[in-house]
Amino acid sequence: MHQNVRAAAAALCLLALTGATATAEEGMWTFDNFPTARMQREMGWAPDQAWLDRVTAGAARLPGCSASNVSGQGLVLTNHHCVISCVSALSGSAANYLDDGFMARAREEELRCPNMQVQVLTRISDVTSRIDTATRGVAPEAFARTRDGEIARIESECSSGDHRCEVVTLYQGGRYGLYEYTRYDDVRLVFAPEHQIAAFGGDPDNYNFPRYCLDFSFLRVYRDGQPAVTPAHLRMRFTPLQEDEIVLAVGNPGTTSRRLTSAEVAFARDVQLPWTLGLLAETRGRLLAYSMQGPEQARIASNALQGVENLVKRYSGQRRALVEGDGFARIVAAETDLQTRVRRNAAAAREVGDAWGEIARAQQTYRGMFTRYQMLEAAAGQRSLLFGWARDIVRAAAEHEKPDAERMPRYTDARIAAAERYVLGRQPAYPSFEQVNLHIWLIKLREYLTVDDPATRAVLGAESPEALAARLSQSRLADPAYREQLWRGGAAAVAASDDPMIVWVRSWDSEARAVRDRYEREVAGPSAAAHERIARARFRAFGTSTYPDATGTPRVTYGRVRGWTENGVAVPAFTHVSGLYQRATGAPPFQLTQRWLDARGRLDADAIYNLVSTTESVGGASGSPLLDQQGRVVGASFDGNSHATGGTYFYDLALNRTVTVAATAIKLSLEQVYGMNALVAELEAE
Amino acid sequence: MHQNVRAAAAALCLLALTGATATAEEGMWTFDNFPTARMQREMGWAPDQAWLDRVTAGAARLPGCSASNVSGQGLVLTNHHCVISCVSALSGSAANYLDDGFMARAREEELRCPNMQVQVLTRISDVTSRIDTATRGVAPEAFARTRDGEIARIESECSSGDHRCEVVTLYQGGRYGLYEYTRYDDVRLVFAPEHQIAAFGGDPDNYNFPRYCLDFSFLRVYRDGQPAVTPAHLRMRFTPLQEDEIVLAVGNPGTTSRRLTSAEVAFARDVQLPWTLGLLAETRGRLLAYSMQGPEQARIASNALQGVENLVKRYSGQRRALVEGDGFARIVAAETDLQTRVRRNAAAAREVGDAWGEIARAQQTYRGMFTRYQMLEAAAGQRSLLFGWARDIVRAAAEHEKPDAERMPRYTDARIAAAERYVLGRQPAYPSFEQVNLHIWLIKLREYLTVDDPATRAVLGAESPEALAARLSQSRLADPAYREQLWRGGAAAVAASDDPMIVWVRSWDSEARAVRDRYEREVAGPSAAAHERIARARFRAFGTSTYPDATGTPRVTYGRVRGWTENGVAVPAFTHVSGLYQRATGAPPFQLTQRWLDARGRLDADAIYNLVSTTESVGGASGSPLLDQQGRVVGASFDGNSHATGGTYFYDLALNRTVTVAATAIKLSLEQVYGMNALVAELEAE
Repeated sequence: MHQNVRAAAAALCLLALTGATATAEEGMWTFDNFPTARMQREMGWAPDQAWLDRVTAGAARLPGCSASNVSGQGLVLTNHHCVISCVSALSGSAANYLDDGFMARAREEELRCPNMQVQVLTRISDVTSRIDTATRGVAPEAFARTRDGEIARIESECSSGDHRCEVVTLYQGGRYGLYEYTRYDDVRLVFAPEHQIAAFGGDPDNYNFPRYCLDFSFLRVYRDGQPAVTPAHLRMRFTPLQEDEIVLAVGNPGTTSRRLTSAEVAFARDVQLPWTLGLLAETRGRLLAYSMQGPEQARIASNALQGVENLVKRYSGQRRALVEGDGFARIVAAETDLQTRVRRNAAAAREVGDAWGEIARAQQTYRGMFTRYQMLEAAAGQRSLLFGWARDIVRAAAEHEKPDAERMPRYTDARIAAAERYVLGRQPAYPSFEQVNLHIWLIKLREYLTVDDPATRAVLGAESPEALAARLSQSRLADPAYREQLWRGGAAAVAASDDPMIVWVRSWDSEARAVRDRYEREVAGPSAAAHERIARARFRAFGTSTYPDATGTPRVTYGRVRGWTENGVAVPAFTHVSGLYQRATGAPPFQLTQRWLDARGRLDADAIYNLVSTTESVGGASGSPLLDQQGRVVGASFDGNSHATGGTYFYDLALNRTVTVAATAIKLSLEQVYGMNALVAELEAE
Repeated sequence: MHQNVRAAAAALCLLALTGATATAEEGMWTFDNFPTARMQREMGWAPDQAWLDRVTAGAARLPGCSASNVSGQGLVLTNHHCVISCVSALSGSAANYLDDGFMARAREEELRCPNMQVQVLTRISDVTSRIDTATRGVAPEAFARTRDGEIARIESECSSGDHRCEVVTLYQGGRYGLYEYTRYDDVRLVFAPEHQIAAFGGDPDNYNFPRYCLDFSFLRVYRDGQPAVTPAHLRMRFTPLQEDEIVLAVGNPGTTSRRLTSAEVAFARDVQLPWTLGLLAETRGRLLAYSMQGPEQARIASNALQGVENLVKRYSGQRRALVEGDGFARIVAAETDLQTRVRRNAAAAREVGDAWGEIARAQQTYRGMFTRYQMLEAAAGQRSLLFGWARDIVRAAAEHEKPDAERMPRYTDARIAAAERYVLGRQPAYPSFEQVNLHIWLIKLREYLTVDDPATRAVLGAESPEALAARLSQSRLADPAYREQLWRGGAAAVAASDDPMIVWVRSWDSEARAVRDRYEREVAGPSAAAHERIARARFRAFGTSTYPDATGTPRVTYGRVRGWTENGVAVPAFTHVSGLYQRATGAPPFQLTQRWLDARGRLDADAIYNLVSTTESVGGASGSPLLDQQGRVVGASFDGNSHATGGTYFYDLALNRTVTVAATAIKLSLEQVYGMNALVAELEAE
């Protein structure tokens, strides 16, 4: 290891000299800009372009998740928590696949997931100049709208059928990439373990390590009713990983905020994260109380509750990262460094102007309107499906009357499919649960805006939040046929509807649109325009030696299998099967299923179960294949440790870790616990 | 007003020159150190010592609240929310005084409050030298214990019967005052309005203004079964207040933190407040869900829920005050100023040493053990009465075996009465509500400490929080007779008990004591010792021209009746009866009672209802008499506006306001709504 330590030290010195702020092993890189030379320096090895092309073709994207194609017959490996909505939707009175797991032992037992898509990246091109041409000379307050209009045009021209195109804003607008995907809509469930095994340890263990989650599942993509032929698949490796082994991960990390200005990060630290955490904590209390009313309520609230608990931990970690240690100081130092470079170069200084000041002022404006914007617009409705459907129906009808480039981005021709899938989807709305979610939102709206605010009066009228939530929860929008009728009927159908939710959403949509417009004109637009200028200055200083913030699009990251030290205690890189049985108290969420209790004697107690590595990950990277130097899949990453949540703002090699379910545990469980021998044979086929 | 503005400006300049950081009208002053000259300068008038002595004798203290004596027959004016536990306790199946109000139209209808005390301050003396002598040369880790031992001795020597003595730590240990009180144990309820009128607007209007709360009530103190003779009472004034009139308030503000070091305030801002707010928000969600199960649950949870909601708003305001504007920068500036003065004076520099560094290191230690200390010790049990009783019983029995000066402060001879009143009190414990409160605590304990912590295993064993909370909620401690048996039985009775809560609390008390000891040795002790040295340096620099942090003991503050400007909008100083009727939508919490609906035609629509003033207040000051220049009671203060919550850390004359129910509203409601003419006559008697 001595050699690598030296290499890393040399790289660090070089970085210090160039002023780039990336630390060793940092970065979620685009496939067209992988830092081969840097990795070679730091790790003594780096993949070549052929390697990268091969894993690009074998990686895949699910809604909000990542995956890999691991057989020539369209088999897809991802996390259990990425397919949980499919597992739930396929369950019914006859079978509970959440509790019992799902095991298709033959092709005809594979069941199609409603509302599931798999996308494979086929091409990346640069459309920066097209966006720049469209937005040149546009005033800051109109910038966001003009840019979004051009994006809508590019996407619309490119997309057709299963060919899906998406313009991705990279480097805060420093570059725009056009990403093209092949889309699979016929996605079937092949295997899912029992939820209590996949999510063993539940919320208490979430973001923690040592960890014992069998958080994987298999899907299969179909074309024309047959398993898709996928020769570009990756292979799995079932031999054990070694400590310090070099690994890479390929996935679609959702969002990082590492290129925000210090004013924006301070806003997140002081306003946005604390506020959001307060709202989430209260919501957690309500949803937990609801789910404790009985098994039916627990089932109804399960997804929402887990989502809230996950966000509480994630945002808590983000906030902590910004108030502990020197993380925030490093953000300020990097910004100061860039500003110094800009000042030294007259052309750069002219181009950037007062970009940082403009963003700081936009943030100050945002502080004054933050809760209003959240409660009336960005976070309106909270977890109410009825509200979400009603707003999409009301707005899509209104936006449809406008030219495509003037619509709200969600309702442009290229993007409206997502709204349509949401509105016409089969997700059930339960009146008692809707009532709770609406009530949470309405009491917080009244609390944050106060009773004396005209918007509060517009939303509540003379009704109490309790009475209003009860009334709205009876909306007929729970009936998919009624939603479809309104969706297809457009403005006329919406205007004619006497449904309480539709009538109500219509009645104060102008208040919500007003705050949205103000946000776009005074916050988002000026910030985006200023960020573009900063991004150009950063390019001038660093070129593409840096990586762009995560954007939910394919990225590759490298590192090593390695534990960390916490309060002086070493946390090892691996957990093993034996530890799972030691941790199982029998009390939820630390219960094993009967299958696992029965299998104990057959299992190799020393087999690696979960592991941590220094590869980066944030939400959206769940399901990412962890790859060895040969490009073989050695596990499916499903989480970060608690420090990794701070990865939104910066990466800390000493503490940030990604958690992965090992391929060894996948094979062992398929063979010894679930009897899925045909599936193992497919994975091992040459 | 021009003259006063000039005077205030002159005072500000003087303050700037002396480096003292108090702004005009700032300060909650002790009665033995009122800034007469300063007030004279700022306001053009100040009370003399006779005035101060007179109001001292007429002011009173309730547990956690303030009050005034307003007739010669022991009549006491305070807030409704200060007597709500009495109103609840006196209610039963026959009468619901919370909903219907309580009106004793004759002495014999006055009902004794269980567990209510009224204390009147009789003497203040300085015991600083006694404490200094006892703690001289003591090592930092033993400082807190030695000091607490000496405090216990002083209090014990002084107290007897109705004469109660309390050593108060002033100026962070710069001075110690011995406060002596006359105590009244026989306190009877005379009048309370309906809860929905007293707390009109509920949580949505709490800390907001315009406001419409009739938050007052009357008690009477008795001696030997007869109304106490109280010739030193204050008189009320029922003529309207004027905008800008000079007013003073006398009360017992609970806690401020204005003399903390910037490291301690940063800890509160970054760790303590966000953590506490997260816990409170989740608790609010749980308690709200519980109380929405039905009217009985709503009644059971009512006090706890209101308390939590109040804290959420208070701490949110405190946190906001530290991240918005220049409040935190001013704290740092004042500290830097004091440090500069210290460095200029060799003797001071020697005495202070590295006090600020010692506190910063103690805070760093506290960061590492904060959640552990909270979950196992300081905030253990959360709102569970059964746990609180069990811990007091178990600990009192163990501490009783030690010499008085070595006991935990709560169990010394001088202070144990409070623990005894708590344990033997009649407050009912409801198993279903206990279970919710225990469950909240236990799941958060597991979350914050993680499953891998030995303390988590000691507390939970192999049980889930759900199962454990259910089991413990069945404790026999709900029976007051059983509690009394254990309390009187001491260590032997505790050791013999097989009650599940007693057995469980006993089983891990050593874990809790260990973290408490570490906190005292490494955080509280070193911080207190360092603060004493800083306090002496501050005395050297400023003498007693400053005021000590609030300590729940009698203070006096001055200011004017005055509104404020918020986001460019002027908020007037007064609300009037007409506004109450306009605000009443009929939906809770904006409903009037039938009495008020019926009375509308009889009431003067222009009568002042609530008002705001620049007098300072924090929690504990509720019920404070607001006084005019003649020392007449013009209202009972019951709240601050949202900015005033930041008063914990600093006072902002532009924004901080105290909210008061006006004497005009008190008289008008007693006469026109409640027909309490005899009570009005008593208030108006010469």
